[in-house]
Amino acid sequence: MNLSVYLAGEIHSSWRDEIKQLTSDLPITCFSPMENHERSDNIGEEILGSQPNAIAKDEAASSLNNLRTQVLLQKSDVVIALFGESYKQWNTAMDASTAVALGKPLILIRPDTLHHALKELSNKAQVVVETPQQAVAALSYIFESE
Amino acid sequence: MNLSVYLAGEIHSSWRDEIKQLTSDLPITCFSPMENHERSDNIGEEILGSQPNAIAKDEAASSLNNLRTQVLLQKSDVVIALFGESYKQWNTAMDASTAVALGKPLILIRPDTLHHALKELSNKAQVVVETPQQAVAALSYIFESE
Amino acid sequence: MNLSVYLAGEIHSSWRDEIKQLTSDLPITCFSPMENHERSDNIGEEILGSQPNAIAKDEAASSLNNLRTQVLLQKSDVVIALFGESYKQWNTAMDASTAVALGKPLILIRPDTLHHALKELSNKAQVVVETPQQAVAALSYIFESE
Amino acid sequence: MNLSVYLAGEIHSSWRDEIKQLTSDLPITCFSPMENHERSDNIGEEILGSQPNAIAKDEAASSLNNLRTQVLLQKSDVVIALFGESYKQWNTAMDASTAVALGKPLILIRPDTLHHALKELSNKAQVVVETPQQAVAALSYIFESE
Amino acid sequence: MNLSVYLAGEIHSSWRDEIKQLTSDLPITCFSPMENHERSDNIGEEILGSQPNAIAKDEAASSLNNLRTQVLLQKSDVVIALFGESYKQWNTAMDASTAVALGKPLILIRPDTLHHALKELSNKAQVVVETPQQAVAALSYIFESE
Amino acid sequence: MNLSVYLAGEIHSSWRDEIKQLTSDLPITCFSPMENHERSDNIGEEILGSQPNAIAKDEAASSLNNLRTQVLLQKSDVVIALFGESYKQWNTAMDASTAVALGKPLILIRPDTLHHALKELSNKAQVVVETPQQAVAALSYIFESE
Amino acid sequence: MNLSVYLAGEIHSSWRDEIKQLTSDLPITCFSPMENHERSDNIGEEILGSQPNAIAKDEAASSLNNLRTQVLLQKSDVVIALFGESYKQWNTAMDASTAVALGKPLILIRPDTLHHALKELSNKAQVVVETPQQAVAALSYIFESE
Amino acid sequence: MNLSVYLAGEIHSSWRDEIKQLTSDLPITCFSPMENHERSDNIGEEILGSQPNAIAKDEAASSLNNLRTQVLLQKSDVVIALFGESYKQWNTAMDASTAVALGKPLILIRPDTLHHALKELSNKAQVVVETPQQAVAALSYIFESE
Repeated sequence: MNLSVYLAGEIHSSWRDEIKQLTSDLPITCFSPMENHERSDNIGEEILGSQPNAIAKDEAASSLNNLRTQVLLQKSDVVIALFGESYKQWNTAMDASTAVALGKPLILIRPDTLHHALKELSNKAQVVVETPQQAVAALSYIFESE
Repeated sequence: MNLSVYLAGEIHSSWRDEIKQLTSDLPITCFSPMENHERSDNIGEEILGSQPNAIAKDEAASSLNNLRTQVLLQKSDVVIALFGESYKQWNTAMDASTAVALGKPLILIRPDTLHHALKELSNKAQVVVETPQQAVAALSYIFESE
Repeated sequence: MNLSVYLAGEIHSSWRDEIKQLTSDLPITCFSPMENHERSDNIGEEILGSQPNAIAKDEAASSLNNLRTQVLLQKSDVVIALFGESYKQWNTAMDASTAVALGKPLILIRPDTLHHALKELSNKAQVVVETPQQAVAALSYIFESE
Repeated sequence: MNLSVYLAGEIHSSWRDEIKQLTSDLPITCFSPMENHERSDNIGEEILGSQPNAIAKDEAASSLNNLRTQVLLQKSDVVIALFGESYKQWNTAMDASTAVALGKPLILIRPDTLHHALKELSNKAQVVVETPQQAVAALSYIFESE
Repeated sequence: MNLSVYLAGEIHSSWRDEIKQLTSDLPITCFSPMENHERSDNIGEEILGSQPNAIAKDEAASSLNNLRTQVLLQKSDVVIALFGESYKQWNTAMDASTAVALGKPLILIRPDTLHHALKELSNKAQVVVETPQQAVAALSYIFESE
Repeated sequence: MNLSVYLAGEIHSSWRDEIKQLTSDLPITCFSPMENHERSDNIGEEILGSQPNAIAKDEAASSLNNLRTQVLLQKSDVVIALFGESYKQWNTAMDASTAVALGKPLILIRPDTLHHALKELSNKAQVVVETPQQAVAALSYIFESE
Repeated sequence: MNLSVYLAGEIHSSWRDEIKQLTSDLPITCFSPMENHERSDNIGEEILGSQPNAIAKDEAASSLNNLRTQVLLQKSDVVIALFGESYKQWNTAMDASTAVALGKPLILIRPDTLHHALKELSNKAQVVVETPQQAVAALSYIFESE
Repeated sequence: MNLSVYLAGEIHSSWRDEIKQLTSDLPITCFSPMENHERSDNIGEEILGSQPNAIAKDEAASSLNNLRTQVLLQKSDVVIALFGESYKQWNTAMDASTAVALGKPLILIRPDTLHHALKELSNKAQVVVETPQQAVAALSYIFESE
């Protein structure tokens, strides 16, 4: 059995590398959003050309970012979503909620200082942890037999 | 034809009253989350009794808030979600994304200063506006014939 | 038993009135797209304000027209789609195909001169006729017992 | 990760070859409708024998063309649909709309002169571009990490 | 609570009248196929006009009979299917199997002499009985509390 | 808004009456399994006649009990399941799990002495309480606005 | 691309061998019901032991035959169903109808003498032919590009 | 064709080894719950750390056990559930019922002394047997052709 795992959440830290390293012995394929923030903001104009204003530029970029996420999320068996201390992180909330609504189990990583603001999403997650290591332990448990 | 509309989003302003007043002539039923913030935070202990710590208190409350939202969202034909300038608003993002994943059309209300942070969710919304009046005009258009 | 019927297709002739008149004795509710063509083209700017160019104006309008269609189509038990001799009629093809993909039975009205170009969509339709009267006879047959 | 992509749209130009050549380095399998127009028109009589009239011949052919499309579309992760300047192109609209209704992301290629007539379908597409190269850039973006 | 019940099966005996009479005190609406056999065979030509041969006549009629059944079956909560001693009864098998595949509970009425030929369909049915009275007793049990 | 609620669980105590009394002011319709235990065991032979052995008698009875439950569960918006101290209660576990798998929110009532044995089902429930009064408070919360 | 094809229908002739031989060059896997009629009738008692009467023996056998068909049908991309001149063939009608209801394309093979009795099922089939060779030509067309 | 089979039920006997040994010649992959009972009870605290009370410890453990089951059940084509003479076995009932609700065929193994208490779940199972050998014979029958 192989599992595909989508890693939703912030792209300003190295948590995905940590997950990939810690799961290197498991039969797991990891998918991610575009981690180059600038490219993710500019991908609309890169492919579709110059746009008339900032909102149109955003709309062009988001159509491509959502194409990417929709394809990768549909290919995934499990979604891990990490919330950090900074940023609005509405994309993380969006991907995590979409996973739940599609019946894909969600592992939520967040510092416990954020628990109150995330309490309803936490209640929908299948597992709530504080660190990438704990998320990997949860994934690993699926494959263990004793 | 009657439509049921779930009004997701902040509970610290009177935007829902505005929507209800403006749609008073339309055959529309509006549903809302618990708008008494304190009660929504305490509903877990109110029903289930004292909990051992803050996270357990949150988990108890969120199980009841999510029961409410799940029932009301499943009864709705359209979801309107409002993002304001303040707060994390992860529940708003969660309800809006769930609506989209369930195939229910989403009308998103946000100040355009928030557009960049909301660009991927905006791209998933069926309509994106700046004011409750515009959201009501969109709802009203469903019923108009000329 | 009441049936809701969505009438997809051209808005430049009076075929919908004919259907409504002919079904006035049946327990049927008819839904339609916005039949005022100019308003349907301008609804985006009417609600969302002036747009930077023609494509942005179209995108704004279509987001509202699709909100309308999505809600009304989901409320419908049967879809009738009429193709005429003029225009591209891609919205008619879109609504008819969406109905089939959602498992809603489709009655297709077209002059037989258009049959060849419509042969694959005709094969997906449940019933293919040439006139609104025939479409109404098909609807009526659902209610008759002898 | 491998992706299967259905290429809907006109069969009178070489745009599919262009897509296949440009994606030759990507782990992508492309599916197409029957590109031999005459054979697609005659396939009903070729397999089922002579039919009594032109409409019956069309119905026989379309039953086989739709068998093909239904199987290939269900096997696809993404649909690319190209609209050109000529022809009714109702099959393209049908395949594109079916993809959207089935939850498969749609990349729409059309000259911007056609945008107005395609505005509602464009609003449903995940990405709208003008050239096959841009569609390939969108596909490629799914696989890139920086 | 009201239930809608589709009565699939032979149209040459009065078993539907028996069901309707026996359920006259229950909050049940019964739907049926066209019970006038000749009209059901001719409905294609009646609405669509003369057809070139017997198979085309059948195809025209069946498109209208299936429109009727698809609408009525989708409106039903329970399906009752009766098999008798005569006829091929492939429509009965088709409607009964469709009900099961759509998750609608099936009550199968057949003489026990037919059980062997119907054993796989019987295994899929929720309840298997020999008489309309027994089918009504099963329906009635849904409403009883002691 | 009216809600339909299925009350799964033991039929040897009066907890359903308590729920019905406590919700008499709410717009709620309650559905129940057959509460007459003996009748529920004998319903197969009552309708289908004498069976050759005990397992066949059980199979006949369960086909009718499951018909009842399938119809009532599909009509319900919320499921409440009560586990008591006695009996195997596998039907309660079955109905509760079916509700969750169908996307219907589950309120689980059990004494906390049973929590360990029910921990996985509790984790799937939307709300877990100890008394019928608490279950009613949860239902009531759906309708309250402050 | 590989396709899995379920071959429903009579087990008293060699039509499946013909299909397998004719498709030996195509990337197709064929699934079949148990073709040993006697074993299919006795499989219940073979595995579950002696049953109290003929109906119980049938019920035991059909539970195993349906297990087999359910698994194989869910694994299939296309269903081919053959009706011959003899027998009730209710299992063929059941498998064919189930395929259609599950959204799997159906190729129906029947002598045209049976068309009238099969007209409603033919209307639901994607392709209707008279011989296994024609069914193979239809399958083959899915893989051809000119 | 390969099949994946989830083996739900008691973890205190060696029945899974028996199934694996007996199916060693079949193209079958078997999945199981965590069979180390103590670890399954402690996995919550093992990964998430010490919990404030017994119920919180159970909730933590069950979130991980359910993650495991949800992933493995979704990957399975068939579910086998074994009920023994001891224990509440509510997880077995939960997994078996979930399988049925998801449309996955269920093979139920139980001593016939338990049949009465399991009669409604037995009626939902596709096959009901008494021993692991019989369950394997049922699985094997899917692959046999004569």
